[in-house]
Parts: sequence; C-alpha cells; structure tokens
Amino acid sequence: MAKISDRGINMPLSPIRKLSPLAAKAKKEGKFVHQLNIGQPDIPTPEWAINDLKSTDFKVVEYSPSEGELSLREAFVEYYKKYDIEVTTDEMIITYGASEALMIVLLSCLNPWDEVIVPEPFYANYSSFAGAADITVKPISSSIESNFALPSIDEFEKLIGPRTKAILICSPNNPTGYTYSKDELEKLKKICLKYDLFLISDEVYREFYYHGEFAPSILGLKGVEDKTIMLDSASKRYSMCGVRVGAIVSKNKEVIQTALKFGQARLSPPQFGQVAVESALKASDTYYREVKEEYKKRKDVLIEELSKIEGVKYSHPYGAFYTVVELPIDDDEKFCSWILTDFDFEGETVMFAPGSGFYVTPGAGKREIRIAYVVEEEKLRRAMKCLREALKVYPGRISEQLPENATSI
Amino acid sequence: MAKISDRGINMPLSPIRKLSPLAAKAKKEGKFVHQLNIGQPDIPTPEWAINDLKSTDFKVVEYSPSEGELSLREAFVEYYKKYDIEVTTDEMIITYGASEALMIVLLSCLNPWDEVIVPEPFYANYSSFAGAADITVKPISSSIESNFALPSIDEFEKLIGPRTKAILICSPNNPTGYTYSKDELEKLKKICLKYDLFLISDEVYREFYYHGEFAPSILGLKGVEDKTIMLDSASKRYSMCGVRVGAIVSKNKEVIQTALKFGQARLSPPQFGQVAVESALKASDTYYREVKEEYKKRKDVLIEELSKIEGVKYSHPYGAFYTVVELPIDDDEKFCSWILTDFDFEGETVMFAPGSGFYVTPGAGKREIRIAYVVEEEKLRRAMKCLREALKVYPGRISEQLPENATSI
Repeated sequence: MAKISDRGINMPLSPIRKLSPLAAKAKKEGKFVHQLNIGQPDIPTPEWAINDLKSTDFKVVEYSPSEGELSLREAFVEYYKKYDIEVTTDEMIITYGASEALMIVLLSCLNPWDEVIVPEPFYANYSSFAGAADITVKPISSSIESNFALPSIDEFEKLIGPRTKAILICSPNNPTGYTYSKDELEKLKKICLKYDLFLISDEVYREFYYHGEFAPSILGLKGVEDKTIMLDSASKRYSMCGVRVGAIVSKNKEVIQTALKFGQARLSPPQFGQVAVESALKASDTYYREVKEEYKKRKDVLIEELSKIEGVKYSHPYGAFYTVVELPIDDDEKFCSWILTDFDFEGETVMFAPGSGFYVTPGAGKREIRIAYVVEEEKLRRAMKCLREALKVYPGRISEQLPENATSI
Repeated sequence: MAKISDRGINMPLSPIRKLSPLAAKAKKEGKFVHQLNIGQPDIPTPEWAINDLKSTDFKVVEYSPSEGELSLREAFVEYYKKYDIEVTTDEMIITYGASEALMIVLLSCLNPWDEVIVPEPFYANYSSFAGAADITVKPISSSIESNFALPSIDEFEKLIGPRTKAILICSPNNPTGYTYSKDELEKLKKICLKYDLFLISDEVYREFYYHGEFAPSILGLKGVEDKTIMLDSASKRYSMCGVRVGAIVSKNKEVIQTALKFGQARLSPPQFGQVAVESALKASDTYYREVKEEYKKRKDVLIEELSKIEGVKYSHPYGAFYTVVELPIDDDEKFCSWILTDFDFEGETVMFAPGSGFYVTPGAGKREIRIAYVVEEEKLRRAMKCLREALKVYPGRISEQLPENATSI
C-alpha cells in the first residue's frame, strides 16, 4: 500500500480537538459539557456585519485579488490607526485567518530545517505549521511562577545558532494570557537586530488587554521595520471564527511580495468572509469596550473561582481569553479524559485542553491545562465548581505539597 | 536585512496573473481588454445558493469541524452518486478549494524531495504547491499533435525512480481541455499498482465534458482504492470561484486521517462558503445541462474562429474551458505583453496566459498561449478577431512555415 509521508505521520493530532469524541460521548450520555477547551467565543457575531453581507448583491462570486480586496485592506488601514499602527494597503495580504498567515510567513522566510524560537507554552498549531514547512521549533521556557513573562535575553542567546531565522511570539498570549510590555518588545527588537532575525508576532487578541487600552504591537518598534511581521485575524475580535479572514502585515516589501506569490498559488481569500470583515472592522468604540468588559469580567470570575480550589496554581492573564493552570494531577491528558468519561457534578462536566499539547519540550506541561474563558459568568462558575469537585475525587491526584495556592503577580 | 527563504525566492510569480499590471494600464488608456487569461467564468452564481446563504440565521459564525460541516459532506455524497462515485462522509475533507486540497495531499503523501509525475503542460500552480512542499515535479510531455492525450506507459516508466511517490493528473484538463478516457485511466492504474504510487486527480471540471455525459473519475477504478485521491472544487461548476470550497476524497483512510491533521492545524473551512455550496450542490440536471451547453457552444465558436487564423495550431478540447494554442510567434511572454501594451483593434485587445508558464521543461511552451473561453460568444469572436489582427502586425512573428493550419483529431 502506498505510504503516507513522514511529515504526515509526525504531524500531531490537535491537542485542542482530540478529546472531541469523549466529549461527544459524554453529551450523548446526558451530561452537560462546559467547553473551555477551544477558543470559540459565545459572543454574537456583529449583526451589522452579517446584515451587510446579506444585503450585498452577488451576481458572480469571483476570485478576489490574491492579496485581498482593496476595500478590505483600506478598512484594515483605518482600523490599525486606532492602535497607532501606520501601514498602507500594499503592506498587507489578506489570508485565511492567522493560521494561513503564519504558514505563508514561515514558507516565505525560512528554509527547511531552519529554526524559529518560540516562548513555551505556545499555541499548539505553531508546531503543526512548522512541521508542515519542515522547520524546527526551538522552545524557550516561560514559567507560571513568573506569570509567563518574557524569558531573559541570555536564555534567547543560548538558543540562537546559524540556522535560527526568526522569533515567533503571540501577545496577548494564547495559551497563557500574558502580554508583552513595550519594554519587553524592545528587548526582542535588540536580539533581532543583533542576530538579524525576523520577529513574527501573532496579535489577534489586541483588544482583549486588561491592563491598559490595548496591547502594544511589534509594528510600533522603530528601526526594525524590515524584520517585523505581524499576523492578524478577525476571528476572535468579532466572534467570527468561521469566516476565515486574517492578514499578514509587514513593512518589509520583499516579505510581502514573497508572501503574495504563495497567496497567488492559492488564488484568493474567501469573498463572503471579506465582505463581512470589511463591515465588522468599522465597529464602534462601544462595541470593543463592551466585548472587552465582558471578557475582563469573566477573567476576574475565573481567577476568583480558581483561588477557591486547593492545590491549584495559576497566573494572572493580562489579555486574550485563556490561562494555563497547574493542577495537583499525575497527567494532563489522563485528567482531561477522565473528567469527561468518569466524572460529573450534578450532571455537568468540563472539557479542557491538556497542557502538554502547548509544549514541545518532552514531559513539560503534564500537570497543566489550558482554560478558555469563552462562556458567560454563571457557566464559568459552574464549570469551576466541576473542576473543584473533580479534583477531590480524581484517582490520579498527587499528594505532594505544591507551593503557594496562588501566585499573585 | 533578514533574508527571505530560498523557497520563497524560487516560488514563481503566477503566469496567469503576472500580466495584470499591463492589463490595468491598457484599460486605463481606454482599451477594452477581453480577459481570456484566467478561469473566472462570467456565468451567474446560482441565485438559490446565494439566497440560501442570505436566509441563514447566523448568531455566532463559529469554527466548523476541520473536516467540514457534516451536512455539506452529505450533500457531496449525494452529488457524487450522479457520477457513479460511491463514497461516504468520512472519506472526504472539505478544503479551501482544490488548491488547499492539493497542498494538503502533497504534504500528507510526499516527503521533501520526493517526486510527482505530472503530464505537461499542466496547471501552473501545481509547481507552486510542489515548491512550497519541497517536492520535485517530473514533467512528462503531452503534445498538441496528439491532442495532449496520455503519454505512453513507456514514457512514464522512464521517469519512475526510487523517489517517485505519485502521479498527478487533471481531467478534464486545465490548460489543454483534454479529458482522459476510461482506458487511459486503466493504464494509469496499472502503473500505480506496479510501482506503488498514489494517483492524484484534479476533477473540478467533471461536468464540462463535451464528448459524453461526464468525465470519468479515478474513483471509478477498481482494485486501486488505496492509491486514488480525488481533488474537487465548487469554484468552476457553480461559478463560485470566490467561495473557496473544495474537497479531498479518498477511500484510503490513512490519507484522510493524515489530511485531517493538516486540516485541524488550519482549524476550519469557511462557514459562509460551506452554506452556499451545500445549497449549490442540489442543482437540477437542467442547471448542469444549460451551463455545459453554453461552454460547448463557446468551445465550438472558439475553434471556428481559430480555424480562420493563418499559422495557428490548435487541439480539440474535450472538456473544461481552456485550450492551448500554438502561434507563429517568437516568444509567448513577449507576445502576451505586446498585445496589451502596443496593440489594439478598434479599441479592443486580449489578455492571454503565456504558454511557458504551464511547463517546467526549460524552453517549452514558448510559442503557445492558453485561452480560457469564459466569455460569451460575441465577445469571444471579437477577441479572436483581435488575435488574428494582432498576428498580422506582431513584430516577433516568425516566418518559418508551420505544418497544417489545424490538427483535427
């Protein structure tokens, strides 16, 4: 039988989605499953965007330009101005979400077996895209004790070798919620200048920042414009995960021109989604404020509830809608399976993403889970109650004394 | 300055799109440009599909399953039955058009520097995807003299080596219009069985077949189900190029499961497009017949007009809506640029795709162009008149005597 490829064999199953069959079974058995495993917001997609799509007169749904509709890129340019990001329509390419944006950037900037440094834990699919592009991920540890802040420059320098071509960050971060300060971004800039590295930043959670107006962007860094590449997406911002519209933004013309060649090969981004996102980008300040307040409230509720659970260690998320939590358990995957299959609290249970899926360092994250706080307050409190009760009876609970209940930073 | 990748540098600019700036300039100067360079049909997208999308109640536009919505896959299963293709919903994955389908299949089945054999000329973007996946394309010549029929088995066997993992075909063919017969597919089957190769077939033009009811599929081949992988797309069939919905279909479970891992990494296909395509797939027989009759008429008009032009060699397309034509010219790219910049006939001119972009063999296709007959009869006749007049005055016309005016096969 014709064999599939090694890269196909090595490609990981999504840690975020692989428990899905167990959750389906639990639901079939009548349990209510709180889905905190995936960054699928419950907030309604802006009605005006859906309505604008519906009132558009489509005669022939044609290919759009490979770089995306000009009117959509113009809408992005206007939108970015609010975040002190000054770019032009020819400094961006519209993609199928931030996922394709990253894949195209990796292909455009790195050769097979080149290396990209990524602070760990990181969004699991980064490994998948690197694997698909035959690129090596070099993880650099960030830890729950320091709130997952930027590792020290020394730690970066230890990892940089002749094949290192880029540093990839996500800020506000999925899965930790940490958000890099301007100072931290300046430190990254210095490393990238010193070693001539690309700095790639996934900034799809820009507005979901709870310690200020919005999260700083790498595109605000001066003197490193030829190295900074920002990845963006409408998915989370407008609760539009299914539209599949994102962007690559960079002032490096060579990067954009190269990315466009990959963009031309796949012809064009989706037309319907582009229309809806162009409209969504015109959201009022009130819209952004209300959404942010909702997530901030949920974050506070989550932390409050976590603080009531004995033996749990957590950090303080500054942004996005995720956090990584350390539990008194033997194994993350076992626990996340067990809570679906062998546990319920008053007919309810919770689906989490196992922590180890966000690490490539062997053995790391085995006592961690990622929680996505994408459900409303009452449900979140119920879900945390489930977690508390589950930890009381989980057979793999470890007895060793953990440090403090909570690290408050 | 941080350098882009070699694969980025080597990625070709789309031969179909790279003359766009010249066409834009011609239009700005007041010329009417007949766009026969790109497979963008002018036929209206089915109204019922647009209406079904518009009447759908979207509250939260969520991620769909990575493999695509079940109801869409069910609609595909029903649709395929009409073409004697018996598959189930778990033998397919919904993709961003046939483009992503091919990229995922190449990544799933071939390792870097493995080889895929492709009859030449072939759809230019196959090279791009192979390049992005670091796969080597081994071209096998098909020629205008034999109507671009399947090369002989001997020719295939000469190319097969230890790194050969697959044969990739497109039938009905872009750019030649040739369509493989069941006998030819049986021959390919024998080669794939003998050398244990995947047989990948791009069948997006299934209905546009002018020598019978519909083009035969590789999924009809018996005893080779573990090797056949079909790529599909709604783009051309329903004049929906911008929706970006296609599929990978195979009875090889390992291929589908591996493809799904790549699918999970990019999360999900576009939701709006899936709704529209699910509806479009329920098209009546009348719809398909009328569209096919329209393209058949255009094909006949095109051939009639080409037969009036001295020194032009053409083949008889059996399907799709393209044909490759040999002209008495020195250089395809020069001619295709010149006709946009330095020529007009009564204020009109034509945009073609240069032939050499459909070849990887150096020097091949230099006297050829691809014509996409995606405009209505009158415009097609005007465009061919432009071509005839252009050839009379083109400074790079070659004087050597070509064989017959037309090869009729």
